[in-house]
Amino acid sequence: MRIALGVEYAGDAFQGWQSQSHGQTVQDHLEAALGGMAGHPVRLHCAGRTDAGVHATAQVVHFDTQSVRSLHGWVRGTNARMKGPVAVRWAVEVGEDFHARFCAVSRRYRYILYNSAVRPALLAGRVGWFHPPLDEAAMAEAARSLLGWQDFSAFRAAGCQAKSPIKLMHEAQVRRDGDYIVFDFWANAFLHHMVRNLVGSLVYVGKGCFPPAWMSEVLQSRDRSRAAMTFSPDGLYLAGVEYPSHWPLPDEGRIIALPRIPFV
Amino acid sequence: MRIALGVEYAGDAFQGWQSQSHGQTVQDHLEAALGGMAGHPVRLHCAGRTDAGVHATAQVVHFDTQSVRSLHGWVRGTNARMKGPVAVRWAVEVGEDFHARFCAVSRRYRYILYNSAVRPALLAGRVGWFHPPLDEAAMAEAARSLLGWQDFSAFRAAGCQAKSPIKLMHEAQVRRDGDYIVFDFWANAFLHHMVRNLVGSLVYVGKGCFPPAWMSEVLQSRDRSRAAMTFSPDGLYLAGVEYPSHWPLPDEGRIIALPRIPFV
Repeated sequence: MRIALGVEYAGDAFQGWQSQSHGQTVQDHLEAALGGMAGHPVRLHCAGRTDAGVHATAQVVHFDTQSVRSLHGWVRGTNARMKGPVAVRWAVEVGEDFHARFCAVSRRYRYILYNSAVRPALLAGRVGWFHPPLDEAAMAEAARSLLGWQDFSAFRAAGCQAKSPIKLMHEAQVRRDGDYIVFDFWANAFLHHMVRNLVGSLVYVGKGCFPPAWMSEVLQSRDRSRAAMTFSPDGLYLAGVEYPSHWPLPDEGRIIALPRIPFV
Repeated sequence: MRIALGVEYAGDAFQGWQSQSHGQTVQDHLEAALGGMAGHPVRLHCAGRTDAGVHATAQVVHFDTQSVRSLHGWVRGTNARMKGPVAVRWAVEVGEDFHARFCAVSRRYRYILYNSAVRPALLAGRVGWFHPPLDEAAMAEAARSLLGWQDFSAFRAAGCQAKSPIKLMHEAQVRRDGDYIVFDFWANAFLHHMVRNLVGSLVYVGKGCFPPAWMSEVLQSRDRSRAAMTFSPDGLYLAGVEYPSHWPLPDEGRIIALPRIPFV
């Protein structure tokens, strides 16, 4: 049978998602714990292969097993076999036609930027940091030019393996909450480093180097050398993956589901 | 001259506040960085000596120096000399009569408890965790019996060095925000482990082991053996220290000042 899991992790504690020989990735930890539960080696497929330092509140993965465990057991047992800032949040049985990566119809990423003269302490590694004041209204205006079907070649990493640089951006929002600036992107798919490259260029606009219309010019140029450098992974969260509604995944796997921490 | 600093840190990265020979405490890191800035050894005094694992958003410290640096320089230079989840947030010059510990008129502590069947991942080490559902209304009622001048011997650690177990509790609130339960305590001073012992006993009430009135019985008994075990340090934050208003400390040092993280 095929099981889908919702997974949350702090990326600063791991060397990215994808399995490596040193074993220090999220996939390595999760496969070891699931393999212990299943009694056989488990191979995971995920919705979005996050880079080193990138976090997830709503990663979705799937695996196949012949072992019979309760869904509750997959969650509790796997979490009991893992240490550190990673946990399975839910488990559901899905059909053999489900694939966490290929069936996903859209992904959501959130970038949280701490815009303050003093670097973050409690949230070090969990938020990006930019010292000079940023104009969030200019960034929000610049972000609107990203909506719709676009060729994102200007924001694509050199090693990106996507078949096409053309993606459909449903939402690209920038807003301020106190000293924090939150960037929300929702698209059918993302190129490698795309969100971090978009944030880097939006920050150029926010600090006044370029007007909002520059973002559209860079996008239209499809020239990576015209956009800004790749921004730090520290503030980046894979925050939602959506699937066609006939798969019975919990809401956490289909909507943006970041923990709302009740600090006043 | 005497300088006061506002300091923020994540307690799970250090072995508590107070200097130890292994050098892995917040005080050790901060004194080394300040000493590098000052060009002479620096000795710090803090408002509240947090235990291992306990965080601070608004710790206040002071030190004496003959070195002339801008206040801005003390902040930026010290932060540049430290790594990890600790930062100086502000610096102000104070008179020789100021003492971070002895002049503080009150402290605020916040405890954040994740009340969920699944353990925390992204916030592992930063929130406490309790699995069974908790009744926050019962806990809030129980907490009200702690207000005013009280003898907190029942919630005092064996090694506590305070001169008196009698403290004035200004505020003791419990409220729920989604899966999180937030405990806020504001008192003139706190005994060793007092907040963690109070939270442990309130959790007994919250899970229905005892009625809210039990909290008052335990308090009146002054018997440590009647109260619950010391709760985990993971969710505890030193969140504010207040001084008489003639010292020109920034608001961050006098009001509760936890970062409001804009997760939706």
